[in-house]
Amino acid sequence: MRIALDAMGGDFAPGPIVAGAVEAAIDLPELTVVLVGDAEKVEAELAKAPQAPRDRLPVVHASQVIGMEDKPVEALRKKRDNSISKCWGLLAAGEVKAVVSAGNTGAMVASALFNAKMFLPGVRRPGIAAIFPSHQGPIVIIDVGANMNAKAEDLYQYGIMGSIYAEEILGVTHPRIGLLNVGTEDEKGTDLTRATRSLFAESPWASRFVGNVEGRDIYEGHVRVVICDGFVGNVLLKAGEGAVEFLFSILREELARMLPELPGGAGQKVAGSLGRLKSRFEYEEFGGGPLLGIRGACIICHGASGPRAIKNALRVAHSLADDRLNARIVEQLGAKLEPGEAPTPGAAPSEAGTAAG
Amino acid sequence: MRIALDAMGGDFAPGPIVAGAVEAAIDLPELTVVLVGDAEKVEAELAKAPQAPRDRLPVVHASQVIGMEDKPVEALRKKRDNSISKCWGLLAAGEVKAVVSAGNTGAMVASALFNAKMFLPGVRRPGIAAIFPSHQGPIVIIDVGANMNAKAEDLYQYGIMGSIYAEEILGVTHPRIGLLNVGTEDEKGTDLTRATRSLFAESPWASRFVGNVEGRDIYEGHVRVVICDGFVGNVLLKAGEGAVEFLFSILREELARMLPELPGGAGQKVAGSLGRLKSRFEYEEFGGGPLLGIRGACIICHGASGPRAIKNALRVAHSLADDRLNARIVEQLGAKLEPGEAPTPGAAPSEAGTAAG
Repeated sequence: MRIALDAMGGDFAPGPIVAGAVEAAIDLPELTVVLVGDAEKVEAELAKAPQAPRDRLPVVHASQVIGMEDKPVEALRKKRDNSISKCWGLLAAGEVKAVVSAGNTGAMVASALFNAKMFLPGVRRPGIAAIFPSHQGPIVIIDVGANMNAKAEDLYQYGIMGSIYAEEILGVTHPRIGLLNVGTEDEKGTDLTRATRSLFAESPWASRFVGNVEGRDIYEGHVRVVICDGFVGNVLLKAGEGAVEFLFSILREELARMLPELPGGAGQKVAGSLGRLKSRFEYEEFGGGPLLGIRGACIICHGASGPRAIKNALRVAHSLADDRLNARIVEQLGAKLEPGEAPTPGAAPSEAGTAAG
Repeated sequence: MRIALDAMGGDFAPGPIVAGAVEAAIDLPELTVVLVGDAEKVEAELAKAPQAPRDRLPVVHASQVIGMEDKPVEALRKKRDNSISKCWGLLAAGEVKAVVSAGNTGAMVASALFNAKMFLPGVRRPGIAAIFPSHQGPIVIIDVGANMNAKAEDLYQYGIMGSIYAEEILGVTHPRIGLLNVGTEDEKGTDLTRATRSLFAESPWASRFVGNVEGRDIYEGHVRVVICDGFVGNVLLKAGEGAVEFLFSILREELARMLPELPGGAGQKVAGSLGRLKSRFEYEEFGGGPLLGIRGACIICHGASGPRAIKNALRVAHSLADDRLNARIVEQLGAKLEPGEAPTPGAAPSEAGTAAG
């Protein structure tokens, strides 16, 4: 499988991005990572990794970079030869099955929006899904930042897409869907939440929909798909990240104060255990969030992604970019694929038909 | 000082509510807690506490209770003799200086909204402030649930009220104000966030306003006042609570697995330390969130409040219900008190004038 990686996207690109690609290519022999970016810089990073399987790490030159601080729409218009647009171009042309970027999220999403051909049939607006931990195992929160002005119909579609994702990728049986709200009672919240409730109640998905859930319910895991607009989801995702950082830094301080008092070896054991625990909460574990509702697959990574996060994102993109997930999304959103169209670029229509059936 | 306490509000009322009032009355000799609720039930709880200073724990009968699941506006209309409305009635009449409730938040806020006399002059909509921990000390997040349809002007006022609260109550010098958003760049977010930014930029508070902050910035503490609409703030507050619960439960599991391996006594020390740490994150410590922008003071407590939370809420209400906080809010929101009006019911206008000066 071929995946396009935005080699210039991320706070520290291209160094850790290319390093992650090399690790992924070594780990997954069936994977080819197309490195999109400034060819000279990318080649320089590749040269630092003599073990890299170069035949599966081709470079596609893009002369421009959209920075993390750039205004997405403006940057996409002005910098025509940027690495993000080029990645999407490769996907649209069927040359790759997925795209991965740790760059400007707004530009990644806007670039897909500009190219409506990239949407799966029936999808109104793609949404970014994030995986959160819970007492019952991983849960999906969607949308965490693709859509700042979500309508009820968007949230409804996020519920369906998130649910199919939870089934197909996380292996959850009959995942229940909850609407993030300020209380569990029906009338709570905003016009958006009330309209979304009504949509679900009258839909074929009514039995999967449990109604409103509150912030504190997320970690209980009674629902495995939590839907919200991209503003709330993004704030929640980043606040969760900040809370984990904060808690563990305080734990470390407390531990450092206590260590000298603990009998020999105990302090190290506790510290080691804390470190392993923290890694369970880190985004690097999941690599990034999939943008659901587009042809093929797209993983949007954290700006601070290191090699491990990029490697894991490529691994996730690899497992996502099969036809089944998208075929089921298309089927459930009620649209039919046009003749000759496949849910994933490069897949034969007949395969798509089988997968959808 | 006299404070009205909704004895019937809360998941386990009236037991822990009355117990908290008794503790507060014992701790603070200058405090009188007016217990509002079913007189028979409240008296029965008081009878369990022979040490209670009964002369400072008068009971005001209210025959009806608004339940946690009741629809606020409907319940306020149908149950005229409910304990929440009666508490506000005492405040409006100047018979108490503050109200405290762990009951239905929507009903608490709606009851204040119904009675526009309760608003401080110049205030558009009151907002609930919550205290979050950060690396720099406590920070204020406002609004966490009073206003589901905030306008830019509301968020602007929340910034000012939160800032004055941080100065007067948390003792922060020149607290900086940040707008919760999905990115730090100016144009990020929604129409609401962009309009709020513009309002601040053109206001006398421009120098205090740092612009957008992200979810992960909250715990850094670089800004001590974070403003957001009540939907986002409420989700954030409850998700933070859930995250802390989740993390500590996992830590406890991990610890339990490790304990037998640790040399004698070390496990207990670590467990004890963990317990102390967790208490720093618990809402019980702060008692509840103040509803800012109303005459007098109002603390809205967590529904699950126990005696300690109620006691702390009464303590906070006591320290809030001076004239200075409200006088400064009125002054900064550009409104003038009408002649003969005091920012806090029961305070002499001359005192208020002095405090504001």
